[in-house]
Amino acid sequence: MDIVIFGSGNAAAVLGRKFKAAGHTILQVYSRNAAAATELAYEWNSESTNYKSTINKNADVYIIAVNDEAIGEITDGLKLPGKVIVHTAAAVPKEILKTVSEHYGVFYPLQSLRKEMITLPEIPVFIDGSDEFTKKKLESLAHSIANEKVVHAGDDARMKLHVAAVVVSNFTNHFYTLAEEYCRKEGLDFKLLIPLIEETASRVKNVSVKEVQTGPAFRHDKETIKKHLELLKNHPQLKNIYLLMTESIQQTT
Amino acid sequence: MDIVIFGSGNAAAVLGRKFKAAGHTILQVYSRNAAAATELAYEWNSESTNYKSTINKNADVYIIAVNDEAIGEITDGLKLPGKVIVHTAAAVPKEILKTVSEHYGVFYPLQSLRKEMITLPEIPVFIDGSDEFTKKKLESLAHSIANEKVVHAGDDARMKLHVAAVVVSNFTNHFYTLAEEYCRKEGLDFKLLIPLIEETASRVKNVSVKEVQTGPAFRHDKETIKKHLELLKNHPQLKNIYLLMTESIQQTT
Repeated sequence: MDIVIFGSGNAAAVLGRKFKAAGHTILQVYSRNAAAATELAYEWNSESTNYKSTINKNADVYIIAVNDEAIGEITDGLKLPGKVIVHTAAAVPKEILKTVSEHYGVFYPLQSLRKEMITLPEIPVFIDGSDEFTKKKLESLAHSIANEKVVHAGDDARMKLHVAAVVVSNFTNHFYTLAEEYCRKEGLDFKLLIPLIEETASRVKNVSVKEVQTGPAFRHDKETIKKHLELLKNHPQLKNIYLLMTESIQQTT
Repeated sequence: MDIVIFGSGNAAAVLGRKFKAAGHTILQVYSRNAAAATELAYEWNSESTNYKSTINKNADVYIIAVNDEAIGEITDGLKLPGKVIVHTAAAVPKEILKTVSEHYGVFYPLQSLRKEMITLPEIPVFIDGSDEFTKKKLESLAHSIANEKVVHAGDDARMKLHVAAVVVSNFTNHFYTLAEEYCRKEGLDFKLLIPLIEETASRVKNVSVKEVQTGPAFRHDKETIKKHLELLKNHPQLKNIYLLMTESIQQTT
């Protein structure tokens, strides 16, 4: 397919690479950040612009991959009748695009995307469309980069998925951050925790996460919990979280 | 080396396999659970026993890989003069072993170990010994299964590492559990979150976790947070955690 991408950040860059790798053509990259757009356009043998008036009208699909707040600035005054236009946001209703074309929808990649990624990760894609034409088009585009991991999901389901994604990714990364900070302050090498971090995540594929829960909280091991809290007395933020998580684990088991 | 293992649970099984793979001989497996000991002994071409009086006295190293509370039952009445005896517990001082031999120490594997593991994970090992002889022996044994990831750590450092391990593994797994439960209740497919879980963990190797923190809390995106809390109104446990984590992320950034 011929694609125009709005945006030059993490989602735009990684999705664009996925599209290129799947054999699609990126006709144009639009961004307020001219330098970033030029760089991506060069990588994709494409064109770049930072003027909405010069948007190429010949693409099949237009993808707005920008921050939630910036979607409105892109759609403002944009008219692409007969074309399929989507955004990539979890938390924005698809109707924000209905002034642009009758064929509007969402193309939500459920993954943590970073421009600097060397290996492109697997990206499940959740799609939604205003009509059958849009849905079919997006389904085909999504399958080309996500194989079997393509799911139809409306605004409500997408928002719920986003909550789950925040929990397993943003919150988890915050634990890594707190643990790194704790190790630094205590003179321990955080890097030695990496095999454990990887094992904990990778086993999710093969086991029931509920059944592999372990640890002092799970075992109601009051002695160890007491010792841990004593060690955390100079780390109030982590101590607070330790208490809540211990309580929550014991509530679940 | 010639090794005797006390225990037949997760740590005993996985460490034993690592020792076998590194070319060591497991002379004997002791466990109150005779069936489990027999099974491991069969796997390792070893012997099993559930009588302390029949412990083989010819090994170089004796490894107690049982629950913290059960260590005392093993050491009670056990005498192995001249031999190296260790336990594998993070939260138990090494002095618990001093009645067994003058050469006592700790061999703490910083990893989540499960008997059912098909692929043996990388296991950093933290060692401690009562004297140079013990330390050298354990260093050599640890290097044979953990390559470069061998660190000397006393009781205090080991306990602190355990706190960090609980945070990045037990607490993280609890998030996975809560997210799975949430998905089940909301009719979403938890399995579609697996690529995100894996990416979040695997990038720890390459990036500063603090610098890749994203999400509504990090962005102070009040609109999205409000929508998420609304979606969590029937999930009080997760909502409570969502609030605390959001607050903690905002406190850090």
